[in-house]
Amino acid sequence: MSEAWVRGREFFTTRSVAEALAGFLPGRRAHVETVSREDALGRVPAAAVVSGSALPGFARSTVDGYAVRASDTYGASDSLPMYLDLTGSVRMGVATSCEVRPGSAVQIPTGAPIPAGADAVVMVEYTQVAMPGTIEVGRPVAVGDGVVRADEDVAVGAQIAPPGRPLRAQDLGLLAAAGVTDVEVHARPRVAIVSTGDEVVPPETTRLEPGQVRDATASALAAMVTQAGGEPSYRGIVADDAEELANSLRAAVHDCDLVVVSAGSSVGARDETTAAVESIAGSAVYCHGLAIKPGKPTLLAECDSVPLIGLPGNPLSALVVFRMVGLPVLRRIAGITVAPPPEPATTATLSRAVASAAGRLDVVQVQVSDDRVATPLFGHSALLSLLTSADGFIVIPEANTGLDAGSAVTVTLYR
Amino acid sequence: MSEAWVRGREFFTTRSVAEALAGFLPGRRAHVETVSREDALGRVPAAAVVSGSALPGFARSTVDGYAVRASDTYGASDSLPMYLDLTGSVRMGVATSCEVRPGSAVQIPTGAPIPAGADAVVMVEYTQVAMPGTIEVGRPVAVGDGVVRADEDVAVGAQIAPPGRPLRAQDLGLLAAAGVTDVEVHARPRVAIVSTGDEVVPPETTRLEPGQVRDATASALAAMVTQAGGEPSYRGIVADDAEELANSLRAAVHDCDLVVVSAGSSVGARDETTAAVESIAGSAVYCHGLAIKPGKPTLLAECDSVPLIGLPGNPLSALVVFRMVGLPVLRRIAGITVAPPPEPATTATLSRAVASAAGRLDVVQVQVSDDRVATPLFGHSALLSLLTSADGFIVIPEANTGLDAGSAVTVTLYR
Repeated sequence: MSEAWVRGREFFTTRSVAEALAGFLPGRRAHVETVSREDALGRVPAAAVVSGSALPGFARSTVDGYAVRASDTYGASDSLPMYLDLTGSVRMGVATSCEVRPGSAVQIPTGAPIPAGADAVVMVEYTQVAMPGTIEVGRPVAVGDGVVRADEDVAVGAQIAPPGRPLRAQDLGLLAAAGVTDVEVHARPRVAIVSTGDEVVPPETTRLEPGQVRDATASALAAMVTQAGGEPSYRGIVADDAEELANSLRAAVHDCDLVVVSAGSSVGARDETTAAVESIAGSAVYCHGLAIKPGKPTLLAECDSVPLIGLPGNPLSALVVFRMVGLPVLRRIAGITVAPPPEPATTATLSRAVASAAGRLDVVQVQVSDDRVATPLFGHSALLSLLTSADGFIVIPEANTGLDAGSAVTVTLYR
Repeated sequence: MSEAWVRGREFFTTRSVAEALAGFLPGRRAHVETVSREDALGRVPAAAVVSGSALPGFARSTVDGYAVRASDTYGASDSLPMYLDLTGSVRMGVATSCEVRPGSAVQIPTGAPIPAGADAVVMVEYTQVAMPGTIEVGRPVAVGDGVVRADEDVAVGAQIAPPGRPLRAQDLGLLAAAGVTDVEVHARPRVAIVSTGDEVVPPETTRLEPGQVRDATASALAAMVTQAGGEPSYRGIVADDAEELANSLRAAVHDCDLVVVSAGSSVGARDETTAAVESIAGSAVYCHGLAIKPGKPTLLAECDSVPLIGLPGNPLSALVVFRMVGLPVLRRIAGITVAPPPEPATTATLSRAVASAAGRLDVVQVQVSDDRVATPLFGHSALLSLLTSADGFIVIPEANTGLDAGSAVTVTLYR
């Protein structure tokens, strides 16, 4: 953490990204709600989901064959098969009244319930019908062969989905198997997206006056929020006016779980965001700047446990910072307690040297060729097209002062 | 490809997974529809999206400072600054009538339009107010310094989103900047999910009769379809009856872009699926089996250009096959023409040996410890809990006959 007087007016606190990730830990959690299993993909259970019954619930055959007593097959071989009386057959999905007595066998398809008396199933491939009512068994089976136990998939009361881990497709399958119809999950965090800047106009604006730009950041942020499981709430474009901005932020803090402000691009507009945040009762600023490029003018604050992120005015910078710092905050609010799976990545060779400053995290957009050469895309962070033409990005850690051409790098790929 | 007579009745064609991925290429594409930009995340443009105007649309300052003629600053230094007349200031978002004449400067904030006559912006840090109306410039600037050109982000008519690549957050940002409100995209492919098996009952069933199991596969498949950008269409559970199944499949082929059948678990049920598919007019079976474990009894067919995938009866096998073979088909139907980004993955050391058969692709579920040891999860493919307790899977290629303990493996991680 470093502090400096800026324009003789206020303490300007800069933190490293690592410090912010470890130290900016707002207490807010999205509330808990009940959703149907069919709507639960990606949702985060607020408590462990347990199974009310054993699964599959009955001993099942795993093969097409004959249910037997294993001891009746001991010693069987192709040259000296065992002969068993065929006394019936089991049908799929129906309780069977068959019983397998010593010296007998019952025909059974894959998945059907093991009849009473049987303790194994011989695959049909290892049998022959010797004569009507009698089969030859050419191989011995051990107790349990060809059988899934009644509680082998899930025991009664066992956890079938842990709290804090987003539900995956296979989790929903197991919940369905257990007859779970509803799940208690954290609500999707509501994320207020506040745009500022006198030059910014809604993207729907058909004709721009000279000097105006359409709001690109809000749309991209909303998409990132959606992708990460949150629910974006557009709060409109606020003029560069401290009072108006403070009112807008107060309302956003009241309504939402996370407030994201894309600041105007000028230093004055950023100062106004800071002033507006500081004027809100219960607000505490964590830092006024992050040691990251692009994205230094980032404000992190908390207002009554609701985190507030003031992003840089340039769309590229704003999106880089939101990815690096905002998404982890969003995951936390969403109730996620497991580490996220690593992003898709590839290793590549850097086409040219990239400079960095010690103590600063650099995020460099790159294109990756088929032969895995990563070419850095340089240009001003006002250019959003850098981000749309990039395949991914590399990160140059704080300790590093740059990378030489030919360095092996890990490229995190956009998806 | 291998062929064999099965039970003296039909040709049984098995393909490798690689053959299927390269050769099973149904012609079906989801239709094209128009969606609003706000609903376009992850959607696949049917044609290139081009910008109707240059972006940002006017030359902008990238810094807070003074707009100047660069030639007026040549030779400036801290010890020998240049003096320029301050003749005005530019405001954000408003067309400026200021003009920068030789020997003069105009104050400008980041993002504001460059006034006429100026060709560079000096950062405020390299200037001082010498006296009211005059600034000192302590560093020279070159033409274009501190300026983003009017078409530097996007030129008129330039492509801002390619066809066939799902729209990402940053793409939506650039579309917003260009004022694009609607996008022509492929519809989400409708995927019919047909369950079969006399033992299978809906997951809502509270009390199971002995021998019954709830349909786990359909819920998990629906989630995988949703995650991959498709729209699942549950078609219910069809009894093991060839005629009823054929009717159900005919209707599904008529209504949907892809039909997925989770077959009953017994060989008889699988035979019925095959018979039902073959009885549909216009159907062509591509293979009756895949050289994959788990998942061998997989049917791939096409009915009037609509692909039909008959999955194995075991939920684990069905989900493995759908991931390996079904999702690529779904991406194709969705109009995606770019390679998918690699799945999240980690390298790990295998805790114990895993056997495989040459010519067969083995998919092994594993848990990965913090110190990156991958432990294979063994158990019958009837056990869905193998999949929910796994962190990911390893693939043993066709050519390989197994992996030794201690082998370095790449684990594809579930997310």
